[in-house]
Amino acid sequence: MAAEKVGIAVIGCGIVGGSTAKLLVRDNELLKNKIGIDLNLKYIVDVNFSKAQKMGLDPALYETDLNKVLADPEIEICVELVGGTTMAKDITEKVLRAGKQVVTANKALLALHGTELMAIAREHGSAIAFEASCGGGIPIIRALCDGLSANRIDAFYGIVNGTCNYILTEMIQKGQTYADALAEAQKDGLAEADPTLDVSGGDSSHKLAIMSALAFGKHIDYNKIPVQGIDTLDLTDVKYGAELGYIVKLLAIAQRTDKGLNLRISPAFISKEHPLAWVSGPFNAVSVYGSNVGHTMYYGRGAGGFPTASAVVADIASAAMGITKIQFDKMGIWPDKTEAALQLPLEDYESKYYVRAMVKDEPGMLSKLSAILAEYNISIASALQKEPTAGSNSAVPIVITTYSTTEGNIRQALKSIEELEGISEKPVYIGIVDEHEEFSS
Amino acid sequence: MAAEKVGIAVIGCGIVGGSTAKLLVRDNELLKNKIGIDLNLKYIVDVNFSKAQKMGLDPALYETDLNKVLADPEIEICVELVGGTTMAKDITEKVLRAGKQVVTANKALLALHGTELMAIAREHGSAIAFEASCGGGIPIIRALCDGLSANRIDAFYGIVNGTCNYILTEMIQKGQTYADALAEAQKDGLAEADPTLDVSGGDSSHKLAIMSALAFGKHIDYNKIPVQGIDTLDLTDVKYGAELGYIVKLLAIAQRTDKGLNLRISPAFISKEHPLAWVSGPFNAVSVYGSNVGHTMYYGRGAGGFPTASAVVADIASAAMGITKIQFDKMGIWPDKTEAALQLPLEDYESKYYVRAMVKDEPGMLSKLSAILAEYNISIASALQKEPTAGSNSAVPIVITTYSTTEGNIRQALKSIEELEGISEKPVYIGIVDEHEEFSS
Repeated sequence: MAAEKVGIAVIGCGIVGGSTAKLLVRDNELLKNKIGIDLNLKYIVDVNFSKAQKMGLDPALYETDLNKVLADPEIEICVELVGGTTMAKDITEKVLRAGKQVVTANKALLALHGTELMAIAREHGSAIAFEASCGGGIPIIRALCDGLSANRIDAFYGIVNGTCNYILTEMIQKGQTYADALAEAQKDGLAEADPTLDVSGGDSSHKLAIMSALAFGKHIDYNKIPVQGIDTLDLTDVKYGAELGYIVKLLAIAQRTDKGLNLRISPAFISKEHPLAWVSGPFNAVSVYGSNVGHTMYYGRGAGGFPTASAVVADIASAAMGITKIQFDKMGIWPDKTEAALQLPLEDYESKYYVRAMVKDEPGMLSKLSAILAEYNISIASALQKEPTAGSNSAVPIVITTYSTTEGNIRQALKSIEELEGISEKPVYIGIVDEHEEFSS
Repeated sequence: MAAEKVGIAVIGCGIVGGSTAKLLVRDNELLKNKIGIDLNLKYIVDVNFSKAQKMGLDPALYETDLNKVLADPEIEICVELVGGTTMAKDITEKVLRAGKQVVTANKALLALHGTELMAIAREHGSAIAFEASCGGGIPIIRALCDGLSANRIDAFYGIVNGTCNYILTEMIQKGQTYADALAEAQKDGLAEADPTLDVSGGDSSHKLAIMSALAFGKHIDYNKIPVQGIDTLDLTDVKYGAELGYIVKLLAIAQRTDKGLNLRISPAFISKEHPLAWVSGPFNAVSVYGSNVGHTMYYGRGAGGFPTASAVVADIASAAMGITKIQFDKMGIWPDKTEAALQLPLEDYESKYYVRAMVKDEPGMLSKLSAILAEYNISIASALQKEPTAGSNSAVPIVITTYSTTEGNIRQALKSIEELEGISEKPVYIGIVDEHEEFSS
């Protein structure tokens, strides 16, 4: 029996688009054996085919006219890999309105316009799949939607930006400054020439918005997510953290509480015992806490051509088999079907904290700091006055770790500390993330 | 619009059966919101309902007559949680012949009779789902079949028995002997009164057979898998391994080579840097290497009532949505559709090895050992003569690590070494598992 055949167009032929096209062609037989369907790549749509040529993709596939693709009844699935949120949005809408299914890796598009696009898909009897939008090749969207469907998700913690994790790993393991580690990442092709979207946490927050919507079954306002990147991180704090048994990671944090959702992107200290602590280099991982399953974790390459194409093609396979459409039609988790989440302000976020203040080397400073923390009901877990650091004008660092308090309290306390006489610069604070309690109800 | 309703029977009400029933009842509303279907538990089938009563499950659900359940047209899905391979096989066949879908957590049943049962399912237009059979609550079956569908799986390495991993963790962290750690696990309810199936590696080999069939798309002969458990593991070797930077784990190893499949269960040393090394206590994890995605890993609780029920109910949800049936019909990976794998003999398995020989404390012994290893083309990476251990009758341990060689070579060499004068007991060897090379073709 001849295998069923499904026509596919890849729109946008950059690294991920080229790898997706290559995978579909090279592994066609493997895929046919696995899923029983001939995934037939018919078009590569772009205006520039230099990448396609470099990857040895058949010029007979090259097409510049999207309308021709949309008018072709054999095309059932279009893969949007254009990137950005303007042209990509326009293309995605057109594909959906043509009743064809969309597979995309575009996190920005989904974080900003996912709800609207899903509504359009629903209106036109179509569907959208986006495994590759979060965590590269890790099947984390499937875990949240399908594998853990029998759970209320209580929290998740993700390392979802490979560039940041690579830079942090270099800072931790080689003692490089942020600037040096960034330069090296750029040299190795692991950071963009303009790394802002990665290092400022923007890319991570796109992924957090997408994953949170599915995990909690709520519509997320992307613009309300507090975002802090790694670009202001001082090597000094990375080192002091390590001495205290902590590894610094840029975390996408999502916690369900009785009051609402805590969502944030920020550098955080995690214990060396935590499963996320050893996720190093460009790898990504997400720890998910389900009400019935407890702690599960998913690990893999968060970027790169073929790892990302692996997720894109898994979506193509599901779409071709009709599974994407069933999930999109039946399940109630999609943002166009759900209520708005109550997103809690950052001030309400509860955590232990690491605090470093640079003080004049004279008696009584620690006592003054402690008094201010006490004023804000912040209990001290440990406090240490360190040796003066070079070039710090004889100021010495006091490093304090606190018991759990709110971000609001810690901020107000540090504001008061900053105004003390003998404080030479703005104090630094970093949240300490403990292992989330399993089966917390 | 009222949600679609699907009738479900849970057959066998032990810990997992009771937890599954409880989850279906307690979380009915949550599940309805997520998947858009009312998962209606209609029967709990057993002969003894003490567990069901203890869990507060409604006696109106209790049913002793399986035939009544099979004759009920509202029942679309039966969950087989009876355990064992005799009655469970009989029940599963009956359910499939009645055209109802089966969800099961029964690894022994699938490892021994999976092919036959799938053929029966196919004949009767039914399907079988078995996420909970491997790795408890970890969605590892979904990763192999669905999330990584765009990959040829090159290898996987799994910690898939929580009892063994708990015992090994106690040996490593507390320096307990195997016997003491087992006794403690039994006291804590983490090992059965008769722990044979777990500690001898049998349970792990069931899971290896199931995962290998799906990962490699081949029919696996379960009886051909070489199995070694942790019950002969000496604390001495755990300690020496730790000194060399290794952690001992009971691994389910599956490697695709040009010649065939290497499948085995055995204790192995893995580097402290390997992601599997920190998987401690009762947790499970599987590292999977895909041709396009590279290394991915899946981590979570490998046993326990609700974690396992999480996987069972995810399967119920997929079956109710019609997804299980599509995958079972279309995909070519199921063992009743695939060819027999070429399973390589253990002698061909290639690895680095740790070797410990107890020798008479006299000059020249290391030289004699080295000569024998050289005779079998085994290169030495490190060699160390340790202090005599207490009660060893003045014998001293020589600890050697080798470069890569075959299991056949190491066995023959150790047989020769055993026959040397001055060797006081059978030498011990343990494979050293390096990080598998990503993207190896």
